[in-house]
Amino acid sequence: MTERIYNFSSGPAVLPLEVLKQAQQDLLALPGVGMSILEISHRSKTFESILNTAVEDIRRLADIPANYHILFVQGGASMQFSMAPMNLLPPNSAADYIVTGTWSKKAVKEAGKVGTVNIAASTESDKFNRIPDAAEIKLDPQAAYVHFTSNNTIFGTEWKAEPQTGTVPLIADMSSDIFSRPLDVSKYALIYAGAQKNLGPAGVTLILIRDDMLPRSPASLPTMLDYNTYAKENSLYNTPPVFAIYIVGLVARWIIDQGGLSEMHRRNERKAGLLYAQIDSSDFYRGHAVAGSRSLMNVNFRLPSEDLEKQFVSEATRAGLDGLKGHRSVGGCRASIYNAFPEEGVQTLVSFMKEFERTHS
Amino acid sequence: MTERIYNFSSGPAVLPLEVLKQAQQDLLALPGVGMSILEISHRSKTFESILNTAVEDIRRLADIPANYHILFVQGGASMQFSMAPMNLLPPNSAADYIVTGTWSKKAVKEAGKVGTVNIAASTESDKFNRIPDAAEIKLDPQAAYVHFTSNNTIFGTEWKAEPQTGTVPLIADMSSDIFSRPLDVSKYALIYAGAQKNLGPAGVTLILIRDDMLPRSPASLPTMLDYNTYAKENSLYNTPPVFAIYIVGLVARWIIDQGGLSEMHRRNERKAGLLYAQIDSSDFYRGHAVAGSRSLMNVNFRLPSEDLEKQFVSEATRAGLDGLKGHRSVGGCRASIYNAFPEEGVQTLVSFMKEFERTHS
Repeated sequence: MTERIYNFSSGPAVLPLEVLKQAQQDLLALPGVGMSILEISHRSKTFESILNTAVEDIRRLADIPANYHILFVQGGASMQFSMAPMNLLPPNSAADYIVTGTWSKKAVKEAGKVGTVNIAASTESDKFNRIPDAAEIKLDPQAAYVHFTSNNTIFGTEWKAEPQTGTVPLIADMSSDIFSRPLDVSKYALIYAGAQKNLGPAGVTLILIRDDMLPRSPASLPTMLDYNTYAKENSLYNTPPVFAIYIVGLVARWIIDQGGLSEMHRRNERKAGLLYAQIDSSDFYRGHAVAGSRSLMNVNFRLPSEDLEKQFVSEATRAGLDGLKGHRSVGGCRASIYNAFPEEGVQTLVSFMKEFERTHS
Repeated sequence: MTERIYNFSSGPAVLPLEVLKQAQQDLLALPGVGMSILEISHRSKTFESILNTAVEDIRRLADIPANYHILFVQGGASMQFSMAPMNLLPPNSAADYIVTGTWSKKAVKEAGKVGTVNIAASTESDKFNRIPDAAEIKLDPQAAYVHFTSNNTIFGTEWKAEPQTGTVPLIADMSSDIFSRPLDVSKYALIYAGAQKNLGPAGVTLILIRDDMLPRSPASLPTMLDYNTYAKENSLYNTPPVFAIYIVGLVARWIIDQGGLSEMHRRNERKAGLLYAQIDSSDFYRGHAVAGSRSLMNVNFRLPSEDLEKQFVSEATRAGLDGLKGHRSVGGCRASIYNAFPEEGVQTLVSFMKEFERTHS
């Protein structure tokens, strides 16, 4: 028997144990197939069924309208930073970007290689400790689209509702909070999400794209960078990342079985609530994000000194609480508690925090 | 216990049973880590060690000189059809492409979106049943590079030795025969290979690139499409396909443990030899590739009629010999017998072929 610890990593991150057990059980041969999921042809009926079931489950899970394509692409959100503008930012037009952290900035940098980018808002002067107010966001009604990052893993902030953009198409990088709460896909032109936080293992990116965006892609695009290639071929133009899609399908089914997005949201609010309550009740710990911008996925906090933070992370790791070190750009500690992270693990961390404060303050 | 069948699929394809068993055993938690390989951070010491060990084993396996980078990229060979010219085909220069099948043609199409392409040779008029002779290949000594496909999965042909290009950099798509035989990497500027045939599961592409090629990449390239990004960051600029790299590492170690590339070559010659001997000894079966161009990886053959071919594939599948249907563009039957395909499976197919011929001719 393998002993598992609590994995607070920001991604790749913890997966549902039921999903891992099923993948393990079937790893030498899928039932009735006689081949591993790692070995089957992507053109086989077995994989066709796995792919289509994953797509259908995702559509059902988030109530995704019929005029949206559900696609699987490789390269992570970092590739989408380029693909989105290559497809959707026509020459002689400009896109609005709302900058709330490191990933937004990277998206701006890549879009700037493709066309004109306007910064509609940025909270960098506040060390990205908050989401901008509606009044701060200067949108261009002629913009090709507005891009934002729904959750900022490094700074622990999250949008409570999407920005209002009127008729301008809205694009979101939802890598770190997709399917963690109810989602109205119809407000978006494009959503992309690297799988390795709430959806599955690293190596596949989920794309939700509205039909009317597809004609924007220029014919000169490399085939593999054109959303139309994936939409026309049901993500099967070339060999897709078969195993990663299989796991995403198992995770989607797991979320449905658990009660869907509302239930995920309820659990995530409870889990994050336990940690924020502990932070707020103590002078020893202080949060990075301001109250109205706090993420349910990534809870960042500081201790009175960097030495204490090092000691905290090191003692926590020994106690089976792994991955609590904050990102090097912001320092401190971070607990990433995505959908699959169990509440017992959060409770264990809260107890550890209380005990650490008692013995070190 | 799971029953496994013989998987003749052209890719994704059969993996070594020892590799699958180890992945299965450790799927819930890597020994001493307490987390699944599907869950660990790509910045963890555990993954760093998995990645570096894979790179070192690959370097040792193919005796890859120190001035070559060993990189892991997403998107398959299809993405490389674009990335290679985007990085290595400067404006106002041209590249030579040798066309020996469907994949070469796709490479030409994508390169044509980037710059000027010359077809140095093509065997399309012979239905791609052969590799061109040296005398047929018209190389431009000023070309930015020469591109060829070392093995053609669809048509079952394979280069016995690389084309001679003098000082012009040589690029090969080796997706379907990499590490199936000894390889002199020093003859190449760039080698790329989708993993899902001889190296691992779908979802990762191995890149071997010579140092002196890296300065060619234009600064305007999207970060994720620039080989320098991967070379500078040891394939860790963003989250790589962790699980696929882990399996590639296990496969590389497996090849070393089996005796390395010479032993793979010996086995592959034996396996393919059994099938070609059966084809040559019969008037019922006939091969597609001409004798000097035959692939050790993909053995294509026809039967006297399409009806018999359908029946052959269908009866073989029922007998536990899966994936023998040829590609739709060429028809007939195809046995893909990569490194991990066991000789017993080939012997079983030969017996099946003999019996099928006896009862249907």
